Amino acid sequence: MVPHLITALTGPINELEQRMLESMPAIERWFRLEWMEHTPPFYTSVDLRNAGFKLAPVDTNLYPGGFNNLTAEMIPLAVQAAMAAIEKICPEAKNLLLIPEKHTRNTFYLANVARLMQIFGSAGLNVRLGTLDETITEPTELPLPDGSTLTLEPLVRTKRRLGLKHFDPCTILVNNDLSAGIPPVLENLHEQYLLPPLHAGWAVRRKSQHFSAYEEVAKKFAKLLGMDPWLINPMYAVCEGVNFQEGAGLDALQAQVDAMLNKVRRKYKEYGINEKPFVIVKADNGTYGMGIMTVRDAKELVDLNRRTRNKMSVVKDGQEVTRVIIQEGVPTYERLNDAVAEPVVYMIDRYVVGGFYRVHAERGIDENLNAPGSSFVPLAFAEPAHLPRPGVKPGVSAPNRFYMYGVIARLAMLAAAYELEATDPNAEVYA
Amino acid sequence: MVPHLITALTGPINELEQRMLESMPAIERWFRLEWMEHTPPFYTSVDLRNAGFKLAPVDTNLYPGGFNNLTAEMIPLAVQAAMAAIEKICPEAKNLLLIPEKHTRNTFYLANVARLMQIFGSAGLNVRLGTLDETITEPTELPLPDGSTLTLEPLVRTKRRLGLKHFDPCTILVNNDLSAGIPPVLENLHEQYLLPPLHAGWAVRRKSQHFSAYEEVAKKFAKLLGMDPWLINPMYAVCEGVNFQEGAGLDALQAQVDAMLNKVRRKYKEYGINEKPFVIVKADNGTYGMGIMTVRDAKELVDLNRRTRNKMSVVKDGQEVTRVIIQEGVPTYERLNDAVAEPVVYMIDRYVVGGFYRVHAERGIDENLNAPGSSFVPLAFAEPAHLPRPGVKPGVSAPNRFYMYGVIARLAMLAAAYELEATDPNAEVYA
Repeated sequence: MVPHLITALTGPINELEQRMLESMPAIERWFRLEWMEHTPPFYTSVDLRNAGFKLAPVDTNLYPGGFNNLTAEMIPLAVQAAMAAIEKICPEAKNLLLIPEKHTRNTFYLANVARLMQIFGSAGLNVRLGTLDETITEPTELPLPDGSTLTLEPLVRTKRRLGLKHFDPCTILVNNDLSAGIPPVLENLHEQYLLPPLHAGWAVRRKSQHFSAYEEVAKKFAKLLGMDPWLINPMYAVCEGVNFQEGAGLDALQAQVDAMLNKVRRKYKEYGINEKPFVIVKADNGTYGMGIMTVRDAKELVDLNRRTRNKMSVVKDGQEVTRVIIQEGVPTYERLNDAVAEPVVYMIDRYVVGGFYRVHAERGIDENLNAPGSSFVPLAFAEPAHLPRPGVKPGVSAPNRFYMYGVIARLAMLAAAYELEATDPNAEVYA
Repeated sequence: MVPHLITALTGPINELEQRMLESMPAIERWFRLEWMEHTPPFYTSVDLRNAGFKLAPVDTNLYPGGFNNLTAEMIPLAVQAAMAAIEKICPEAKNLLLIPEKHTRNTFYLANVARLMQIFGSAGLNVRLGTLDETITEPTELPLPDGSTLTLEPLVRTKRRLGLKHFDPCTILVNNDLSAGIPPVLENLHEQYLLPPLHAGWAVRRKSQHFSAYEEVAKKFAKLLGMDPWLINPMYAVCEGVNFQEGAGLDALQAQVDAMLNKVRRKYKEYGINEKPFVIVKADNGTYGMGIMTVRDAKELVDLNRRTRNKMSVVKDGQEVTRVIIQEGVPTYERLNDAVAEPVVYMIDRYVVGGFYRVHAERGIDENLNAPGSSFVPLAFAEPAHLPRPGVKPGVSAPNRFYMYGVIARLAMLAAAYELEATDPNAEVYA
């Protein structure tokens, strides 16, 4: 069953959907050629916002959680993609060490870990869990809601290799976004495949780098389709030297917010969009929906209350915020019942394997939905999800909309590939 | 919904299923390594027979029809596999020319062609149909049962390339098994990818070569799992110089049938199987379920009636039969309601993308089911089809049985890869 969505798909996005369907062979070919030059991240999830007049990625996660929110129908796709990924990286692979987040008591997250183990197990690997939590010194069973258990084991590091007791993996898959910094135990592993590479972690990664790469990708893609890249690209700016706690740097931030609101206003005018612009201010290194605020007027920044200051000062694992991005806000006009919804698309290797709607009943169309209280409704496959049906009127066919979502999500994934190349500390420089 | 199947899974096959589930990582790794050395056929379907005491492929089709019998849930898997295949063969691909069978009024077959167009279209190719039927000299619309149409176009051959009017494909996908011989229009195409290669057609292919390659594959695989290859390998022998119409060579055939029945009898004794052995006599170049007979006693060959002689004398497209294989008969103990059923597994590139049961209410457990009157019940994915569930009792879990089916089908596909290497007229010889 395709969830019953109320989407205000009018104007530009309907035209865009139409153009994407007509251009499908050109689009798929373009992706194939890009993947010849660039290596896709091992796995990726992308949050999208569909404003009806604009469709854009707002977050690209290289350590995706939430695989448990995919439906059973999507699992074979994930397994097939995992097989393709493994075959490419290390066909001789036998053992896969999976390193999850430390917050091990969150059963939703544990269900994600169990799902990842199922996917890579079904792809033909022995999968075991090693934890970065140094308080775990022997195999520890964690109960899952369905009555099964996961076993977390302490890592065993030798000079050259990382593994578990009696378990020597050729590949290490990290599902921990490394916000707390790069753990020494993961450093200097040159004999094993460490996926994603360490510089994909939030100890190194910056949202601004990602959106800079995305802008480049969006421009290329827009050229292919002969359209304004703004339709798929959220504008952004960077502001450094901000200290919300001490109130430092807020003048500069205010000026930049104002400038961005004006840029958005001009674009709205160009397209005849009757909306109130807003921007999202986010920590450049923030994840987990932390360190994010919606600003509808630059004046709001003059007198921030203590709660907002606290919220914006530190992100996951206590990282301080001094650099933020100011991103054009993309309202989401998708609704499920009365709740605001945004699509999240999951990919393994270069393949879209599924997705769901993140739904939040208590948030507005201009707010971050990745917050406590959100729920998940699978982008279920009444019709196979990413199979567009040419000839069906744009805007009315869920499969067609899903194809468009899959394209934009893959553009964000491609941007992540560009980003990881640009930030690779081991990149060879041909100068 | 997994179809309700009555399977008499007792003894060896239950043990085999158990061993396969336990050995899944080793099996998948083994396949990965084999695919590093050998190129899988572009697409393949394999007919299996599950006798409870033995599970074996009985036919490997390199021009599979019946894609229309796959359920909607399986299509995304097929699309993803098609994407992987295209990417590997020709990432720059834009246009795909599909060449179907000539018997263009069979709407079941046309539905298969439409499904293939959907799959490769969704993988991002412009797909058009070119026909080998020379009576078609201009684009001709063929109606489909669902009200849509297919357009067959005449082929346009230049010195170096094959295409249609205003359509120059980089890849030509043949869905015609070439029983009638290799059409000159397909010869000497060196600039385009012609898939499968011409020597995969029944103008060249021989069942005996395939089963010889399968025997080799089965022995390797059996060694990996530490089991008797007979559990997955149907024994066979070849008999030449047979002319059913004139009664020539039948003495020799009778002797070989008798020898094969004795071999099977000994195996049954070894395993304590209380069954009456039978053999299948098939034209070495036969397809489409033509030129096949079941023999329970060599004496049956002494006095063949006219109908059987006619049936065994010519196969598809009027090819004469002079060479047959005598294959150990594998009874099928799977039933759907009261009808005898056999699984058919579909693969694109190296991936299992779906399958169904071929069901025939009027045939026996020791007869060929690929005959008029058969119907198709999808191996539907209540649980994702090829995802085994370790820990579930063998023989009772459909997903586990499907995993085993997928393994055996992939062994047959691998055998086809060996076979095509051995018969490649352009193979480089390192001597």
